[in-house]
Amino acid sequence: MPIEKPTIFNTVKEIRTRLQEVRTQGQSISFVPTMGNLHQGHFDLILKASELADHVVVSIFVNPMQFGPHEDFDAYPRTLATDFGALSELPCQSIFAPTVREIYPKGVSTEIDVPSLSTILCGQHRPGHFRGVATIVNKLLNIVEPQYAILGKKDYQQLQVIETMVSDLLMPIKIVGAETTREPSGLAMSSRNAYLSEIQRTLAAELFHSLNTLAIALAETRHMSPILKIERQRLTDAGFIVDYLEIRNADNISATYLEATRAVILVAARLGKARLIDNLVVHLTH
Amino acid sequence: MPIEKPTIFNTVKEIRTRLQEVRTQGQSISFVPTMGNLHQGHFDLILKASELADHVVVSIFVNPMQFGPHEDFDAYPRTLATDFGALSELPCQSIFAPTVREIYPKGVSTEIDVPSLSTILCGQHRPGHFRGVATIVNKLLNIVEPQYAILGKKDYQQLQVIETMVSDLLMPIKIVGAETTREPSGLAMSSRNAYLSEIQRTLAAELFHSLNTLAIALAETRHMSPILKIERQRLTDAGFIVDYLEIRNADNISATYLEATRAVILVAARLGKARLIDNLVVHLTH
Repeated sequence: MPIEKPTIFNTVKEIRTRLQEVRTQGQSISFVPTMGNLHQGHFDLILKASELADHVVVSIFVNPMQFGPHEDFDAYPRTLATDFGALSELPCQSIFAPTVREIYPKGVSTEIDVPSLSTILCGQHRPGHFRGVATIVNKLLNIVEPQYAILGKKDYQQLQVIETMVSDLLMPIKIVGAETTREPSGLAMSSRNAYLSEIQRTLAAELFHSLNTLAIALAETRHMSPILKIERQRLTDAGFIVDYLEIRNADNISATYLEATRAVILVAARLGKARLIDNLVVHLTH
Repeated sequence: MPIEKPTIFNTVKEIRTRLQEVRTQGQSISFVPTMGNLHQGHFDLILKASELADHVVVSIFVNPMQFGPHEDFDAYPRTLATDFGALSELPCQSIFAPTVREIYPKGVSTEIDVPSLSTILCGQHRPGHFRGVATIVNKLLNIVEPQYAILGKKDYQQLQVIETMVSDLLMPIKIVGAETTREPSGLAMSSRNAYLSEIQRTLAAELFHSLNTLAIALAETRHMSPILKIERQRLTDAGFIVDYLEIRNADNISATYLEATRAVILVAARLGKARLIDNLVVHLTH
């Protein structure tokens, strides 16, 4: 089946008008929010979106509100033309690529937060980050009004924040988590991998290696402190600055995993200019 | 025209199903969120709602999240049967009267706030109040998905918080502010007037008297500090505990009114068990 090229919308008004037509035609809508610099991980989200609904909307917006003052908002890779080209080969009908002014015409007054989830793990290292994420996703969902929104499990904490927000605020939307797409080395695909040199990129696969080592250990024991310490040290010795390497309840990352049926092993570590995150969910047998 | 009795819904699922039918029939929806104990002020909001859309939804929900730990959540007047009776005489098609558990099944994790507006005036005296208001109204709007929501101007700061939230979050809803309904004495109608003795009720009209005195003075001068001080003292001497009596820019209550084209005079004062608020908007000539 030949794929029709997607239409690009830059304003809230234009995409709303178009999606109102789509709805009037009885079509369902699925939505993939992105910050652009699209890679295979995004493509897999879009393929999943196309399985769930008739009309796929992809947004491309680097959201200033989720970047800290000393983070990489300015440096974040912006590759709009390449992204549009890639999307024209994918089952995507509408692209929403607004300016910052279009999304924050009056700056930021209203904030959405899930404090219990947004102050731990990455939130501890990136204060305000998840408030920025929750707020922008809420806004985008209000613009697109999809039946489904598809988010990658690579950003596990982000997915938890968004799922909690949508559930708590009773938004009539189903959030779908999609599996992490990995390089053959095991490295989770991420736009921030572009910051890595070739040598660093090879080294970066050690994060996934650590997650697997811990998963194997978890099948044998709950006395994980010593092995977590060893893996943290191993990564540090390899050249990472480890923000955290922890095990949590997979259903609620703010809780201990000791009573859980599923644990998630989460890592965040800096390597050169890149801050990399990854995780692995493990089913526990008690 | 004989008025059809409204249908009462207690669950999110039931009212959503009903309103989906209403939308499919091509009808527009307007929404009046209330905490019940309905009086003429609410009736006027409902009449306004019926002028704006085909199907009027009234919610009755005393929202625990907007009450402080030492406030009147438990004492707040709950008069469901009387309210249902009153609504059956009004142009209202659907009543949404959920339990607290229905609205907060998992407690409160997600919070919506407009810090610049929620920490001043009433927000200074009721920490967390407007966060509770913004969050519940967001949830109710997500359930009802109306074209219009009608809120009273008596709660001026609340109206500003909601207008800002809906605008910032790009919610596809028009917020309509409705004029304050007053007793013949000038006292703004409020469910909390029920806390007043007969003598206190007579005295309470002094708040509106002060607002008018200040409005007249504002037509003459911008040197309002002395007269504000006099009015605060007059109310205190009469038996009020004045939380604030202030003049702000009517378009943005966080700003000074000196350059504004419209000012709003705002008062909050406690009398016996009641905390009363009122305001008056004044057009300024420079």
